[in-house]
Amino acid sequence: MLIELKRDSHVPLYDQIAGQVRGMISRGTLRIGDRLPANRELARMLGVNRTTVTTAYAELMADGLINSHVGRGTFICALPAAEKSAPANEQLRPAPIQWSALLADDRRDRWLGGMPPSPGKGFTSLAYSLPASDVFPLDEFRRAVDRVIRKERQVLLESGSTGGYEPLQEYIAAQMALTGARVGPEQILITNGCQQSISLIRQVLAGPGDEVVVENPTYPGALSVFCGYDSRHIGVPVGPHGLDLDVLEGVLSQRRPKLIYTIPSFQNPTGVTMDMAARRRLLQLAARHRVPIVEDDIYRELRYEGPSIPSLKALDECGLVIYVSSFSKIGFPGVRVGWIAAEKTLISHLSAAKRRSDLHTSLLAQAAIYEFSRRGLIAKHIKRLNKVHLERRDAMLAALVKHFPEESTWNTPQGGLGVCVALPKAVDANQLLLESIERGVVFSPGDHFYSNLPPSNMARLSFSTSTPAAIEEAVKRLGGILKARLLSLKKQGIARAAQSYRALV
Amino acid sequence: MLIELKRDSHVPLYDQIAGQVRGMISRGTLRIGDRLPANRELARMLGVNRTTVTTAYAELMADGLINSHVGRGTFICALPAAEKSAPANEQLRPAPIQWSALLADDRRDRWLGGMPPSPGKGFTSLAYSLPASDVFPLDEFRRAVDRVIRKERQVLLESGSTGGYEPLQEYIAAQMALTGARVGPEQILITNGCQQSISLIRQVLAGPGDEVVVENPTYPGALSVFCGYDSRHIGVPVGPHGLDLDVLEGVLSQRRPKLIYTIPSFQNPTGVTMDMAARRRLLQLAARHRVPIVEDDIYRELRYEGPSIPSLKALDECGLVIYVSSFSKIGFPGVRVGWIAAEKTLISHLSAAKRRSDLHTSLLAQAAIYEFSRRGLIAKHIKRLNKVHLERRDAMLAALVKHFPEESTWNTPQGGLGVCVALPKAVDANQLLLESIERGVVFSPGDHFYSNLPPSNMARLSFSTSTPAAIEEAVKRLGGILKARLLSLKKQGIARAAQSYRALV
Repeated sequence: MLIELKRDSHVPLYDQIAGQVRGMISRGTLRIGDRLPANRELARMLGVNRTTVTTAYAELMADGLINSHVGRGTFICALPAAEKSAPANEQLRPAPIQWSALLADDRRDRWLGGMPPSPGKGFTSLAYSLPASDVFPLDEFRRAVDRVIRKERQVLLESGSTGGYEPLQEYIAAQMALTGARVGPEQILITNGCQQSISLIRQVLAGPGDEVVVENPTYPGALSVFCGYDSRHIGVPVGPHGLDLDVLEGVLSQRRPKLIYTIPSFQNPTGVTMDMAARRRLLQLAARHRVPIVEDDIYRELRYEGPSIPSLKALDECGLVIYVSSFSKIGFPGVRVGWIAAEKTLISHLSAAKRRSDLHTSLLAQAAIYEFSRRGLIAKHIKRLNKVHLERRDAMLAALVKHFPEESTWNTPQGGLGVCVALPKAVDANQLLLESIERGVVFSPGDHFYSNLPPSNMARLSFSTSTPAAIEEAVKRLGGILKARLLSLKKQGIARAAQSYRALV
Repeated sequence: MLIELKRDSHVPLYDQIAGQVRGMISRGTLRIGDRLPANRELARMLGVNRTTVTTAYAELMADGLINSHVGRGTFICALPAAEKSAPANEQLRPAPIQWSALLADDRRDRWLGGMPPSPGKGFTSLAYSLPASDVFPLDEFRRAVDRVIRKERQVLLESGSTGGYEPLQEYIAAQMALTGARVGPEQILITNGCQQSISLIRQVLAGPGDEVVVENPTYPGALSVFCGYDSRHIGVPVGPHGLDLDVLEGVLSQRRPKLIYTIPSFQNPTGVTMDMAARRRLLQLAARHRVPIVEDDIYRELRYEGPSIPSLKALDECGLVIYVSSFSKIGFPGVRVGWIAAEKTLISHLSAAKRRSDLHTSLLAQAAIYEFSRRGLIAKHIKRLNKVHLERRDAMLAALVKHFPEESTWNTPQGGLGVCVALPKAVDANQLLLESIERGVVFSPGDHFYSNLPPSNMARLSFSTSTPAAIEEAVKRLGGILKARLLSLKKQGIARAAQSYRALV
């Protein structure tokens, strides 16, 4: 009789013994009439107190699974009810549930296997829009966590309020005020990052069948929210100055979208930023048509060049901007803390949706980030991060010039975490990815970012998570594959031309 | 010119200056033609470097808001676009957005102001189903957090995988196996607690208009999920042995619910537990009708008396049980970590929903709880907690006997965190709550837990978060209010009877 006990488990030992005997009866390892070892014997075998075994047997007896006869021993006397009828006949067992037939939402989820493959060791990843992790101020963060637990004591382990950890709400409101966006702490709802912010906003503002405006291309996580469920989306192209406002104006004059989702600064994946004039026009259009704007400002602090342009929220005069941001791009994607800033009425409804979703964001995570931030460590870290990111951006731009075929073009993002590259027209980015994985490099093909009409030759290359040397090497490999591909296409072209020529003469 | 700078902020100083000047222009504190202080002057006033002010002014100039004339100074030359037309005329500004008109879900949210009031200082709360927080092993927890950050380094701050922190998935699978439920780590999805688990399950299994079976009464958070949105619910009564299976059988023979949500052990709020026979019958019914069961097993470890009864998941033969539990009732409600255990196909769809909701649960929270648990500290804590809870339960039961009027009845829960009391029939629990708040005591009136047909005289009194002395005092006060109420009702009755008698003679 094979029973394995875990001494450090939170399941009491007698419960473990009873549970495992039950399992053996259920699996047929033990059968009706089988004799169990005597209490003392089993206690010795397992190295446990005799009363532990007595308690375990008492439990099994209470379940009606075993019987004890004085002087004869303890026997299995019953099987789990469902097996009674046909203990040895597998065919009569109820068939396993077919889950795929029971799903409410059977449309293919964009993210069910749709993410770029996670690189193993030896891979260089240009795929993720994440901050450099090799410069995380880990020990400072650890000390901040330790300090805040000592200070707050029980509070961090107790149930918290849905709105968030108050000191963090106050800190964020104060930070936003410094950039001209006037919001009070009660207008801040702490979330588990921008993904949750977006998801809550959709729940509250866009019902089944409602339309929303998204930038095309945009953050894939937003597409998973706005293009999933029953929402319908209108993709508005992104030009060199951000969201195409002429197209948007046309859309707003004909349709009644429930919201406009935009990333005005260092847009993902294009890297472009809306200037002041564009921001003002966007606000006017939205105000005229009474359509709320969801401003995803997650890259704001990652600015390497160019002026700081006020957020839509700072310029907003009629309270129609719902501002979302997080700590994930400036240091802590794994800690999962972000926020929504909006008018109080809306915040109260978003809070109800948040409570329904998961009650509140981890107090441990919130307090850790607050403590780290309030001591000025986040400001210091952002400075260091921007220095590192800038070096890496420049390394990537230089490598692109050096190694990529002339037929490719790209922008020079003034902030953010990646470069958006238009590959030579004849090249398919997904095909390139398959080949580059074999050469140890991963990146994000453009179609991940498009709600419709994806170009086949777009790629986003993130520079933030690799060293300049690794970036140079990875871009060199990508360039090599591209050049080989173009050469082979050219040869095919010449061969075809020669064939046509021969057919003519 | 009032500019406030925060030196420890992550917003650069020049950005703070530019942002606040922008705000002043926008609010009309600064007007076109107003002169700004010279660089040097403002730098001295604010105690910052002169280049900081130069940079701030350069930003404002780039925005077209200010102009510099050599020898004359720097002037405000423009207003934010929207204000240009009518700078001083408030009436021409766009009207503020009326959010209430824009909400997708305008049905009253059960939780929008529907929770029992949070007690201030001096209050005794019998309202919340939470573990005793005064025995949290805080320093051990703090050390576990410190240790796991040292061990995992960057990993906890980097982006994680949606399924969860792998060591925690493995730990949970191993723990479940010890009680006879065979699930692999890949069948565990880590969530932010049971509330999120329930919410994700609904998203994946119950579409708009679909029906689900809930226990009546049940956990209010489940009602907020299953009775909100477009789900429709069928409330099945809870009897002395849990869910009324005769009623359920009738429901399943006539309707096609998408799932059955149940708390089989120490049900919230009734405290009752389904015995083995009932569990087997429930599983057979569900298997016959092919309806998944959501087993909320959050109170399992909080057992003070009676046998340990296997979970539905441990008895499940056709994979129809979706098991949800968390660490919130055994120690860490504020840390927000729970899990779902189910068949792999379903887990992959639930993971996609989780990714869409918030990418993944905080790695810091997951790793902290893992480290605390794997060292056996959670097992030790549960032991201590159960001892404390049992004392408090007994204090409450004794106080109820001593202070409550004879017309009230209650059960003796063998586990869980509260006692379910049927008040004298003539008493309304919400009325009692209003009076008891004035006497410094809060509790949960029964109607919070009912999806339909709430009795007016039911109350859940949680014993876990107050000391025995506080419980005795709080129950005494409640009893006093009840007795006074009964006396006044009796007097009214006598007066009415006397009146009737007088009318007759």
